[in-house]
Amino acid sequence: MVKNLEEIKVIGFDADDTLWVNETYFREAEHAICKLLSHYETPNKIDQEIFKMEMKNLGIYGYGVKAFILSMVEVALELSNYTVSNQVITEILDIGKAMLNKPVELLSGVETTLKTLSKKYKLIVITKGDLLDQERKLERSGLSKYFHHIEIVSDKKSINYSRVLKHLEIEPKSFLMVGNSLKSDILPLINIGAQAVHIPFHTTWAHETVSPAETKDKEFTTLKSISELPALLAL
Amino acid sequence: MVKNLEEIKVIGFDADDTLWVNETYFREAEHAICKLLSHYETPNKIDQEIFKMEMKNLGIYGYGVKAFILSMVEVALELSNYTVSNQVITEILDIGKAMLNKPVELLSGVETTLKTLSKKYKLIVITKGDLLDQERKLERSGLSKYFHHIEIVSDKKSINYSRVLKHLEIEPKSFLMVGNSLKSDILPLINIGAQAVHIPFHTTWAHETVSPAETKDKEFTTLKSISELPALLAL
Repeated sequence: MVKNLEEIKVIGFDADDTLWVNETYFREAEHAICKLLSHYETPNKIDQEIFKMEMKNLGIYGYGVKAFILSMVEVALELSNYTVSNQVITEILDIGKAMLNKPVELLSGVETTLKTLSKKYKLIVITKGDLLDQERKLERSGLSKYFHHIEIVSDKKSINYSRVLKHLEIEPKSFLMVGNSLKSDILPLINIGAQAVHIPFHTTWAHETVSPAETKDKEFTTLKSISELPALLAL
Repeated sequence: MVKNLEEIKVIGFDADDTLWVNETYFREAEHAICKLLSHYETPNKIDQEIFKMEMKNLGIYGYGVKAFILSMVEVALELSNYTVSNQVITEILDIGKAMLNKPVELLSGVETTLKTLSKKYKLIVITKGDLLDQERKLERSGLSKYFHHIEIVSDKKSINYSRVLKHLEIEPKSFLMVGNSLKSDILPLINIGAQAVHIPFHTTWAHETVSPAETKDKEFTTLKSISELPALLAL
């Protein structure tokens, strides 16, 4: 349920795994890298090392495909004890380029929903990741026309949202955020007095998961699909 | 000379090589990579291959250190005909991390000038590159307090500037841009009816150079140092 529905003026959307498929491509890439490195370790161990490396490098590289690929090269070097072939490194770079060149696959119901909501609300996108890659995906998505503003941020903590809302002169009580990640799209908003709608995607990156304790007593709505959003907003 | 001085309300600053040293670090990195690959080619040939690879990948990777390092790994693979050692690849990754961890070295006169100008003008930063890396440099620089707004863009063409000015509700005739690159900081502004001040840095990336024909008949001021800016603005 959305409280004080009449006060909501602006709806913010996460992009990756809310408007279009993203995590699936990272999983496919990890799977391909596990295969490339299967000489050296079990898939389970490689998965663990991939996640450890991404976490080690998150502070310096940030989010996005380029950061991911740089970490994957480092995983290949380390896991092979510095014996990995040039061929494997080349294939890892190619996996990254293929990810950056992927067509955008919209999630079901996205365009219809945005069209409906844009008649009553100001819609904005707040997403993290590579600046160029996110701009490119928005352009390829054909969805830019529905959005009043697009903000690409380096992280999605409460402070990042507060800055965006302040800059756009949006009061938190007039703002509703929609996204698939409890950690990045829901909890930081509730913490600053905005509202949030959670639409889970079938796959969640381990870094984006939260413990049940963190969501306890937090008020937000969960929907199965973005298509349920107009009804939630009495449209 | 700045025309219609009384109409200028907002001054935009480029960041890399205008507020702080940047290109120098890329040159040092390229030099180190030439040394690592000296088995395979002459420094001159390696330099050429580095530039060619960066241009080949610019559309997909964009600007910034992560893009640079991914291209450098690819140069090492190609130039060595896929025989380069894991040690060299590791050292290239380490060069990238060292670049991202560098302290920020302000150019002479920057802080005093910003302090003076901020009393009369709204100051903003418009810079391209990695989102996280540029945010980090601004924070480390201690200069954020002088800026009303910081915009990190994926490219610096006229269209990118027009979008930023429109979003911030700044009229081009009220805007003066200050930067070291004729291609990125000066010409795109003149083309949209804003003004620009060129402060050359001693080193310019080949991608940022322009032919004399491109600047012919373009009106802009060239200064030797940012410290000359207050006098130019009659402060």
